[in-house]
Amino acid sequence: MSIQNQQTKLNIGLFGFGVVGEGLYKVLEQTPTLNAQIKKVCIKHPEKRRSAPEELFTIDPEVLLQDNDINVIVELIDDADAAYYIVSTALKNKKAVVSANKKLIAEHLAELIALQQHFKVPFLYESAACASIPVIRNLEEYYDNDLLHGISGIVNGSTNYILTKVFEEKLSFEEALLQAQYEGFAESDPALDVEGTDAVNKLTILLAHAYGIVSPPQEIVHTGIQNLQAADAVFAREKGYEIKLVAQARKLDNGKIAAFVLPQFVQKDSQLYSVRNEYNGVIIESRLADKQFFYGKGAGSFPTASAVLSDLSALRYDYKYEYKKLRYQEPAQLTNDFFLRVYISFDGLFHVPHEKFEKIEEWSSSDRRCHVTGIIRFSRLLDASWWKRKSVSLIVYPDAFVDKVPVKERTEKDVLILV
Amino acid sequence: MSIQNQQTKLNIGLFGFGVVGEGLYKVLEQTPTLNAQIKKVCIKHPEKRRSAPEELFTIDPEVLLQDNDINVIVELIDDADAAYYIVSTALKNKKAVVSANKKLIAEHLAELIALQQHFKVPFLYESAACASIPVIRNLEEYYDNDLLHGISGIVNGSTNYILTKVFEEKLSFEEALLQAQYEGFAESDPALDVEGTDAVNKLTILLAHAYGIVSPPQEIVHTGIQNLQAADAVFAREKGYEIKLVAQARKLDNGKIAAFVLPQFVQKDSQLYSVRNEYNGVIIESRLADKQFFYGKGAGSFPTASAVLSDLSALRYDYKYEYKKLRYQEPAQLTNDFFLRVYISFDGLFHVPHEKFEKIEEWSSSDRRCHVTGIIRFSRLLDASWWKRKSVSLIVYPDAFVDKVPVKERTEKDVLILV
Repeated sequence: MSIQNQQTKLNIGLFGFGVVGEGLYKVLEQTPTLNAQIKKVCIKHPEKRRSAPEELFTIDPEVLLQDNDINVIVELIDDADAAYYIVSTALKNKKAVVSANKKLIAEHLAELIALQQHFKVPFLYESAACASIPVIRNLEEYYDNDLLHGISGIVNGSTNYILTKVFEEKLSFEEALLQAQYEGFAESDPALDVEGTDAVNKLTILLAHAYGIVSPPQEIVHTGIQNLQAADAVFAREKGYEIKLVAQARKLDNGKIAAFVLPQFVQKDSQLYSVRNEYNGVIIESRLADKQFFYGKGAGSFPTASAVLSDLSALRYDYKYEYKKLRYQEPAQLTNDFFLRVYISFDGLFHVPHEKFEKIEEWSSSDRRCHVTGIIRFSRLLDASWWKRKSVSLIVYPDAFVDKVPVKERTEKDVLILV
Repeated sequence: MSIQNQQTKLNIGLFGFGVVGEGLYKVLEQTPTLNAQIKKVCIKHPEKRRSAPEELFTIDPEVLLQDNDINVIVELIDDADAAYYIVSTALKNKKAVVSANKKLIAEHLAELIALQQHFKVPFLYESAACASIPVIRNLEEYYDNDLLHGISGIVNGSTNYILTKVFEEKLSFEEALLQAQYEGFAESDPALDVEGTDAVNKLTILLAHAYGIVSPPQEIVHTGIQNLQAADAVFAREKGYEIKLVAQARKLDNGKIAAFVLPQFVQKDSQLYSVRNEYNGVIIESRLADKQFFYGKGAGSFPTASAVLSDLSALRYDYKYEYKKLRYQEPAQLTNDFFLRVYISFDGLFHVPHEKFEKIEEWSSSDRRCHVTGIIRFSRLLDASWWKRKSVSLIVYPDAFVDKVPVKERTEKDVLILV
């Protein structure tokens, strides 16, 4: 059953009644003008007390999925595998679907796009990338990807919260992580945030809408802030930088797309510099609109509910993602064949990864910590065994893309280190 | 003829072939995937050389308006009166319309909304407020205005350019205005920018989409930066402020809406502080999404073309503004019954407008310039004869809304001034 016009009532089957689900239920109850109501809610733990009539609930997913009267499924559960069954079954049953599950979407994107196109039903997930910030919708409006130079953003609120505490309150990384967990900004598995998995899931989603690239998230080079050291923060402060975990995609001169999630030094003149605590911010650069910046809360129950509501509102006028860029005759391609200016720090002398660099521009070493600044061939990062080691931190410079391929050269400085 | 599905080809009749129109033509020519083409262009000066085939052009508006084959009119001309005829005739002829003409839209909004609803055709104008920033579309997604606490934004690029030059390069207001004109950031009539007319036109449009309020722009209290003095900039700098021209609307505790365009002191912690030069930025505060910030180029041919293209793209899936908030049982109302903390400066002693203040909190005077900080009843600004005088500048404080109505009181300080 599709939703043909704005008069159609949305009859919603809701999976999950946590803070987002319950918030959604309440807003819909209080706002009859939305012409949307939750008919049934599927929950996992029937024994919990709920602030809604008992007859609303069931533990059987099929009660929702097989109900012809329900034309929209809203999926707000934590378990990505169960969510996959729910979302794919709902699409097959020609129900519109709204989901906030970035892990599910990133990992099954190709299949979920195929299902939407085959069954001609909308599947919206604005809340899955940067919660309340309408970045997916905005990328969809860029119909021609040769207009889009790049996107770069802070897309994970808990790592940004930690980095803010480190830079503003001079907490150690460990203290800041504890505080983020205490404040509830971490995912149920904090490694998802801290190691960059959540950010690369979001980048995967953005890549599809920005460039029509559908890539498994694990194939995109990424890390988090787990290896950053106090010495890195000191180095950054001395240079007037902050460190942010930045997800980015950029169209290179050859038309191919570079994409990664890595810590980056950010300067005061960047809009990302001002993104603090649990906020998210995304810069979209394009030929016509030039630089646009979107900023807002990237996580939390209310911002997520806000984006889910805006998806429901969009369903009322039959909005669906067009994925136009996927249908280009020559779809964009990811590449790892480019050069970046990076900073790498590591413990002790004799661990300088000099052979990984095309050119070393600056270095320092002490008994405690060494660092190198130089130009690296990005494809060297595909082997993560050396740069993701616990003792190594890698940080990208601002304007890190290096146009010309430098000739591999040895300077006297290199020799000095290597003696 | 309405546009029923995404396969429908857009046959465009274009009014105006200036930089935006010509840019649009080129992008559409180069991008067949858009499924949109310009069939005919109506121009005013046929003698000008054009970079497009001669048979594309006409000087007769009716050739476009009466052509049943044309299903979209794009209106990009400077003359608001001519634009009004074009837009209203096109809507009556059941053609979808895209316009960038904020003056036309602000001044005829009620009628243009009625025409859209009567003839059931979309009229889109994302470029009319903040050009490339999708602020109208985003406000439309807030379906329930009790969720929306307020909007505040820098919506005029040329005044912001001038203020940036005054604060960063310490130019005088006069020098900065000259530079803005030289750089081409001023409207063809610079008074439209400098005196706040352009900003209040945009606020009028935003009010309709944010709160369902359709008000003639001239009824909204507004001014520009024409009366700001060097001494005001000195005062601001000393306090760590910058001065920005801010358009804002805020829902008060009684549910009514305060709206105005006035210069405002802005602190470092506000996202508006970082909006420099010709950029625009809008903060949207709502209950669920909390604070969102949208930033981008607010003027210029490319950003405008970008927004026009995104409107055309939206037409392909039959998008139209729903103006949902206009149809509420109890639509929101504007009010002038509230209190603001303001700074007023003026020439010489004995010109202190002390009787306009409910409470004076701070003052200083010298032979050259005096200023007063205090709480003012907003409705006193309806009489502009005293505060819009050339020698008076009025600047709103950050967080200027004062909750409690202060009892009118005289302090010893007042007496000191008044001696």
